[in-house]
Amino acid sequence: MLIDVHGHVSAPDKLYSYKANLLSHRGAHGRGGPRISDDELRAAQDAPNPSFGNASHMDHLDGAGVDLQLISPRPYQMMHSETGRLVQWFTEETNTVIHRLCELYPERYKGVAGLPQSPELDVQEWTAELRRTVTELGFAGCLLNPDPHEGTAVPPALGDRYWYPLYEALCELDVPAIIHGAGCRPPTREPYSLHFIQEETVAIWSLLSSSVLTDFPDLKIVVSHGGGAIPYQVGRFLPADVRGSNRPYMERLRSLWFDTCLYTQDSIELLLRTVGVDRALFGTEKPGTGSQRDPRTGRWFDDIHLLIGDIDWLTPTEREQIFAENARKLFKL
Amino acid sequence: MLIDVHGHVSAPDKLYSYKANLLSHRGAHGRGGPRISDDELRAAQDAPNPSFGNASHMDHLDGAGVDLQLISPRPYQMMHSETGRLVQWFTEETNTVIHRLCELYPERYKGVAGLPQSPELDVQEWTAELRRTVTELGFAGCLLNPDPHEGTAVPPALGDRYWYPLYEALCELDVPAIIHGAGCRPPTREPYSLHFIQEETVAIWSLLSSSVLTDFPDLKIVVSHGGGAIPYQVGRFLPADVRGSNRPYMERLRSLWFDTCLYTQDSIELLLRTVGVDRALFGTEKPGTGSQRDPRTGRWFDDIHLLIGDIDWLTPTEREQIFAENARKLFKL
Amino acid sequence: MLIDVHGHVSAPDKLYSYKANLLSHRGAHGRGGPRISDDELRAAQDAPNPSFGNASHMDHLDGAGVDLQLISPRPYQMMHSETGRLVQWFTEETNTVIHRLCELYPERYKGVAGLPQSPELDVQEWTAELRRTVTELGFAGCLLNPDPHEGTAVPPALGDRYWYPLYEALCELDVPAIIHGAGCRPPTREPYSLHFIQEETVAIWSLLSSSVLTDFPDLKIVVSHGGGAIPYQVGRFLPADVRGSNRPYMERLRSLWFDTCLYTQDSIELLLRTVGVDRALFGTEKPGTGSQRDPRTGRWFDDIHLLIGDIDWLTPTEREQIFAENARKLFKL
Amino acid sequence: MLIDVHGHVSAPDKLYSYKANLLSHRGAHGRGGPRISDDELRAAQDAPNPSFGNASHMDHLDGAGVDLQLISPRPYQMMHSETGRLVQWFTEETNTVIHRLCELYPERYKGVAGLPQSPELDVQEWTAELRRTVTELGFAGCLLNPDPHEGTAVPPALGDRYWYPLYEALCELDVPAIIHGAGCRPPTREPYSLHFIQEETVAIWSLLSSSVLTDFPDLKIVVSHGGGAIPYQVGRFLPADVRGSNRPYMERLRSLWFDTCLYTQDSIELLLRTVGVDRALFGTEKPGTGSQRDPRTGRWFDDIHLLIGDIDWLTPTEREQIFAENARKLFKL
Amino acid sequence: MLIDVHGHVSAPDKLYSYKANLLSHRGAHGRGGPRISDDELRAAQDAPNPSFGNASHMDHLDGAGVDLQLISPRPYQMMHSETGRLVQWFTEETNTVIHRLCELYPERYKGVAGLPQSPELDVQEWTAELRRTVTELGFAGCLLNPDPHEGTAVPPALGDRYWYPLYEALCELDVPAIIHGAGCRPPTREPYSLHFIQEETVAIWSLLSSSVLTDFPDLKIVVSHGGGAIPYQVGRFLPADVRGSNRPYMERLRSLWFDTCLYTQDSIELLLRTVGVDRALFGTEKPGTGSQRDPRTGRWFDDIHLLIGDIDWLTPTEREQIFAENARKLFKL
Amino acid sequence: MLIDVHGHVSAPDKLYSYKANLLSHRGAHGRGGPRISDDELRAAQDAPNPSFGNASHMDHLDGAGVDLQLISPRPYQMMHSETGRLVQWFTEETNTVIHRLCELYPERYKGVAGLPQSPELDVQEWTAELRRTVTELGFAGCLLNPDPHEGTAVPPALGDRYWYPLYEALCELDVPAIIHGAGCRPPTREPYSLHFIQEETVAIWSLLSSSVLTDFPDLKIVVSHGGGAIPYQVGRFLPADVRGSNRPYMERLRSLWFDTCLYTQDSIELLLRTVGVDRALFGTEKPGTGSQRDPRTGRWFDDIHLLIGDIDWLTPTEREQIFAENARKLFKL
Repeated sequence: MLIDVHGHVSAPDKLYSYKANLLSHRGAHGRGGPRISDDELRAAQDAPNPSFGNASHMDHLDGAGVDLQLISPRPYQMMHSETGRLVQWFTEETNTVIHRLCELYPERYKGVAGLPQSPELDVQEWTAELRRTVTELGFAGCLLNPDPHEGTAVPPALGDRYWYPLYEALCELDVPAIIHGAGCRPPTREPYSLHFIQEETVAIWSLLSSSVLTDFPDLKIVVSHGGGAIPYQVGRFLPADVRGSNRPYMERLRSLWFDTCLYTQDSIELLLRTVGVDRALFGTEKPGTGSQRDPRTGRWFDDIHLLIGDIDWLTPTEREQIFAENARKLFKL
Repeated sequence: MLIDVHGHVSAPDKLYSYKANLLSHRGAHGRGGPRISDDELRAAQDAPNPSFGNASHMDHLDGAGVDLQLISPRPYQMMHSETGRLVQWFTEETNTVIHRLCELYPERYKGVAGLPQSPELDVQEWTAELRRTVTELGFAGCLLNPDPHEGTAVPPALGDRYWYPLYEALCELDVPAIIHGAGCRPPTREPYSLHFIQEETVAIWSLLSSSVLTDFPDLKIVVSHGGGAIPYQVGRFLPADVRGSNRPYMERLRSLWFDTCLYTQDSIELLLRTVGVDRALFGTEKPGTGSQRDPRTGRWFDDIHLLIGDIDWLTPTEREQIFAENARKLFKL
Repeated sequence: MLIDVHGHVSAPDKLYSYKANLLSHRGAHGRGGPRISDDELRAAQDAPNPSFGNASHMDHLDGAGVDLQLISPRPYQMMHSETGRLVQWFTEETNTVIHRLCELYPERYKGVAGLPQSPELDVQEWTAELRRTVTELGFAGCLLNPDPHEGTAVPPALGDRYWYPLYEALCELDVPAIIHGAGCRPPTREPYSLHFIQEETVAIWSLLSSSVLTDFPDLKIVVSHGGGAIPYQVGRFLPADVRGSNRPYMERLRSLWFDTCLYTQDSIELLLRTVGVDRALFGTEKPGTGSQRDPRTGRWFDDIHLLIGDIDWLTPTEREQIFAENARKLFKL
Repeated sequence: MLIDVHGHVSAPDKLYSYKANLLSHRGAHGRGGPRISDDELRAAQDAPNPSFGNASHMDHLDGAGVDLQLISPRPYQMMHSETGRLVQWFTEETNTVIHRLCELYPERYKGVAGLPQSPELDVQEWTAELRRTVTELGFAGCLLNPDPHEGTAVPPALGDRYWYPLYEALCELDVPAIIHGAGCRPPTREPYSLHFIQEETVAIWSLLSSSVLTDFPDLKIVVSHGGGAIPYQVGRFLPADVRGSNRPYMERLRSLWFDTCLYTQDSIELLLRTVGVDRALFGTEKPGTGSQRDPRTGRWFDDIHLLIGDIDWLTPTEREQIFAENARKLFKL
Repeated sequence: MLIDVHGHVSAPDKLYSYKANLLSHRGAHGRGGPRISDDELRAAQDAPNPSFGNASHMDHLDGAGVDLQLISPRPYQMMHSETGRLVQWFTEETNTVIHRLCELYPERYKGVAGLPQSPELDVQEWTAELRRTVTELGFAGCLLNPDPHEGTAVPPALGDRYWYPLYEALCELDVPAIIHGAGCRPPTREPYSLHFIQEETVAIWSLLSSSVLTDFPDLKIVVSHGGGAIPYQVGRFLPADVRGSNRPYMERLRSLWFDTCLYTQDSIELLLRTVGVDRALFGTEKPGTGSQRDPRTGRWFDDIHLLIGDIDWLTPTEREQIFAENARKLFKL
Repeated sequence: MLIDVHGHVSAPDKLYSYKANLLSHRGAHGRGGPRISDDELRAAQDAPNPSFGNASHMDHLDGAGVDLQLISPRPYQMMHSETGRLVQWFTEETNTVIHRLCELYPERYKGVAGLPQSPELDVQEWTAELRRTVTELGFAGCLLNPDPHEGTAVPPALGDRYWYPLYEALCELDVPAIIHGAGCRPPTREPYSLHFIQEETVAIWSLLSSSVLTDFPDLKIVVSHGGGAIPYQVGRFLPADVRGSNRPYMERLRSLWFDTCLYTQDSIELLLRTVGVDRALFGTEKPGTGSQRDPRTGRWFDDIHLLIGDIDWLTPTEREQIFAENARKLFKL
């Protein structure tokens, strides 16, 4: 069985024209809504998408044999840096679309919430939507964007007490948060896709160098895209164990989880060797950045199940852990 | 014959999901495009719209007997205050949609261009799109937003030399500009719809108190919504004629044109009495803000042809001037 | 009888050289005072003023047959955007000058207070001067400037709770506030005189779209200059009645009062038709902006009693309401 | 004979109510003017002033036996930090008032110009008024305020090339500049009167540590109030002569001139001993800060001629130099 | 006996390479420490210093016959405007170095503390180090920098309640504070050495024009460098006694103490005459700014004991007061 | 033979106390210099350093068998975000120390320059020091910090024309630049050591997505620390090859060079597999972050030669390329 922990919703155009409208009237038309029918929702799962190799979301899942996918909002659309009220409305509508898809495809989809992470709102205010999605809509967890300013200012690091109300709610509801950036606006130098990597790198550093993991021993954090730069640069952090009196770095690192959303076998191997098979979760971001066929191999770049399949030193049990067991336990699926 | 100089395009959702996408990837996916078919364009003209009294764009035009409508971008969607490159792409795509509609409905629609008025771009750069739309696409004029910051900063007044490259291009191409605000974002206190009025008020003041009308004697400026507050407050400006040595205020005021886009007969009468019938252009903004039926009368609020029809002191010739002749001459229709 | 609710004090030069001095020593000389004698006060009422057609304040009142005028500070001199302590001193001295004039001319003048609306002070601190002028000096009300920053920053809208301490004091003392802007400094584009109009427009919008009128059912608000742009643009706000569930717009609008300080008959007629005769108060701003003779008619532009006299559809009772009765009741004169 | 190089104009209230007006209408009323009659000018010289011990300007000059006084604008009124155009108008009107006084009292007064030192204007633009006053009005020099921001920002130091256009004009016209601060606004901590001292201290440091005196060997600079802190702290700068290779500090210091505007004999003695009698100019600032009678001695604090008279080690020739000769040569009187 | 109240520590290079390191790793290496041996401390007292005329700290003390010197941190090294945590670490290490020197040279040195005056820290937090140094390390007082921003922003004046927690601690511990600036960074125009003078000038003004001396009658404040500009400019402040109702200026001024750290006899005489012998404390800043030999006299510029010796009108008792008695009582030595 | 391209200078304390002094007097003492003797330079190479496992620089080189090391300034000490003039002085002094060490140890050391990358200076001004070090001092290349603001602002990306004057100078002198961050100050969230990684990641993205490599085909760029996150995340960038028309990503990536400064064998293997053996340069940063002994293995973490030695699939020729040949050719050693 294949459980993909890293999927993003394929929503009809109406959700985004709704968003464009919000950003234009700035609330003057009231909240309104995207007014999407079930048929339109289904059509959006089956429509071939030129950005994704002209295959549909369902084509991609079927092709890779993904049995169950956790779906969350398209991160780059989350617009956390916009006006609080607008972020709130759009986030809630997006989560509602996800929920409706989970009801239409109960075997295929499980929801992961976006949070209205506007810096204009108190962190406490973000947690209302976490509660609604988990307790009322049955979602399995949420995304956590370490940079609600989307590149326009420097936020408090994840180790800062600023974030504690969210950690408290996550522990209370006993669901994981998946570290995943959102958009990235000027003045930063990087596109959103690289910003994800940079934010994951900072996020791990922020968490491991703070007392978050001690203060919240039950907090479950998944880091997307194989943990940014950290597994590759891990040697850089080990000598400090000798200099200082902290809990060993590897022990701290292995209190997090990591998805396998990397598109080369070498990198996935390095990840597994570094953080351990028991901390890795199958994740594809399908359809998404990697949804093109590699002209040299004919494979989709994001056919991560094939890359994992090619790793000869994994045992069947280990493969099963990565593909489904770890996720099943962590997300209580 | 009825020529409506104040119409805004009814575009398919795809144009706005395209916009939402631009605002999210910030250019990282490249320019792309909204990929709209002719059928989708036609459907958008005929779809009943709940925001507009459940009637379609065509229903509204037919109902009011509008023969020809000048259509421009929906102003509140123009997003001038966003990143220059994104503004440019979206403006061009919007104008292209307008052009395609003009080709599909050559008798019904005539294009009025939006300009990529990003403060990040030189005014000179805005004029390229003016030239393209007028010389290549046959547009009759353009919108001019006096506040490209959309409420987030104070722009140079329209009397400032900052705007001269645009005035030069307008004169060279011999087309009018229609003063019309765009969006309105925090920190301003007013919604975009009131911002239009405020900007028109400032625009008239800025133009009349500067040397623009002397420096560009052939410049043709139409002010939307009956000129903001000016015709109503006109008495306030007359005593200065006695104090100063300027050209008389009324003479300066009457070098501009005004549309009749006001939704009460009293106001339209005041406008006509103040600026003169020869300076008034029939304009409805249909379908738009006024597209609801007045429960007391059963009329659409924006049935401005009926309001003008009710003015008993207008001669048939004057009515004809307002309804069609003035516009025909000004826009060379 | 003619009661003019819109008059501003004619003070001796010493009041303004006092102000210039404050702005120069910034408090280093202590508060001091303008040291004006009664004779100087009287002379200032009788001195012909070249800015006002070479007639004196008294000439203007006598000429127009104004029996009683409510006088407040010259708004453009109020300097709300300066340092709090200086604003406080100058406002108090100005109100004291007004009070002394009211004592010298008890039949002719009634005081309307300026408030020390410095953004550096708490709104609560402004109300001390309101209390002093009303309870100790017998003033009939106060001015309320919606933009204490005088164009240098965006203030909270009048619907914001920021303003509530002032509304509470007004209700407690049971006196009206007259919406009237003060100065206007860069970076805005408009002169103070147009800023008045823009602020009145925003003020009405802010009040009517908020819960102020519900939270303070007894609050009495007069809007100067015939309500800015709103009566002229009123049609723009009516369709929302159909879309939303608010109290009807006209009902909300008619919970405010409006002065007739417009210098054309057409505009005054539009005002009276729009808000109703029972909501209109005779106001001239004499001597002021309109104090020049119209060369075409020989009349003073601000001879508003003549303009109202020329409106043929008003009954004698209605004229009496506008000229005196409404003001008498509202201000308890 | 007594020549007092440090006097400020006593102008009628009208000049300052004109200023208050400019700061309120911000130019909307046009430039206008203070409209002062000759009688009003004369009255201002003869009116007893409560701030100055109830004596008039002329009383003070007569009492001290001042034969000729150089009069410049009241520095704290110069408002350099306001909008450029307003500064220009007010400065020119002030200089014109000074000029008219010099014509009314040709034996008693000689003009020293204020410059429109708005940071919004180019330094080049300031020099037009220097040229007008020197070449057309016969002024003997000008004030130079090292801090045109009046405490709201940090200006370029006087050694910076920013100031060179002014130095060039001073050399070309061959007139001295008198270093004298203007107002002082928040956020600084000091009142304008102490700001003068601080600015003089920085000014001397800035000039002596730069190449100004080498680049403009003919530049004549007078420092007010005995040179701020420098003569008292002079020892602090001497050891650097040993460390570095500059021209000796005392030599550089003595290329400037200093007025005696200090109100204690000890300080004047220290000044004379430090900079030399040949670099000292009699200056009183009469009437001004020091125009109160010392209750212990009955003398006016600013009776500086008496303090100098009490210095027993000065020769008659030296006294004559200080009282008149140095000034006569420097200002070509 | 000679007690010098104005000395600064001569510390080994390691203290400053430690500081450079802090400013580079910004805390990433942890606090660490300068790791200085007693031998290195002693060597730093005995090493000839080219900046100080090639004589050592001890040479200077011996040469001048200084028996006891109060030593505090080198002010220009205190870096108060840097990150709070770094300021705290460096200040504590510097005070510890001072303490170790006092233990190595118990007859020669007495400690005066630097405080971690980072604007990022609460004033309350600064006082912990004051308590530690006074109660645990036996220090005699502390430095007080009126400008913790070091020229990069305007701090609250010393009369502001911002400073009250420090005044409270000083009174509670019954130790004096010595007013002394620290560094001076852009955008100010002056070097740190002149900034000291300017800050002392403002400090005296701020204290005397506030209620600090009334609120803290037991507060003991010493002003360095002879009080900046104030004793020289003292006449400027006396006329206000006549105008206002304050306690006489001289009385207020004489509630402070002043060191004699001026390098010319004239200035020291002026100081003594102005503030009185009983308010003057012998201070040299040796070795420091003045540690060069005057080529004309062969004396060290900072041989202030010689300058005082040359003042012929001082009695032996007065000399003794200045040289030792005043300091002994004030600092309880 | 072992050539280590990534070494940083071990300088005596005096260089850093010199730096601390510059940051304190801000130039007021003049440039001065660190005054280091040859003996002190040699001692600094041989002194055991507690931060580096109590071994000396030479111990580390000898222990690892490094024959030749390229030494550059300690990056975290470079203080690029400080005042331009101070950066210039300190950078030049540091390079001079490096040069003197190269002369003392001509077989062991080869210089790599730091540049005075202050954002206050023009990029053109930075190149003077590049020219001096390469043409006069024989240096082999320079460091290039992509973030001269050190975390306090967002700089232009390396693809921006801002950087072109530096690229031109590098090409003209035909020397490589080594991408290496400097310090990292608030408000960023990461310590300098992680900032290096983030900056390398952005640097590669900036260069490869721009036209720099086309505009400067001969430009030689080495990326430190194995290229930040890029080789690990490389799969993320490959699908774009299919979507766009760029030169293939791997081809562009392989136009850069990468050092092996990673402290785990897995990471080094991933690097070599990703960029190719011909693009890898042996680099250790010895002594530095990795200079602690791994308690599990007894090896130094930065014994990168052992890690490379353990990679069983490398041929002897490949090892030789990595260890020396690639560097020899690139740096012309």
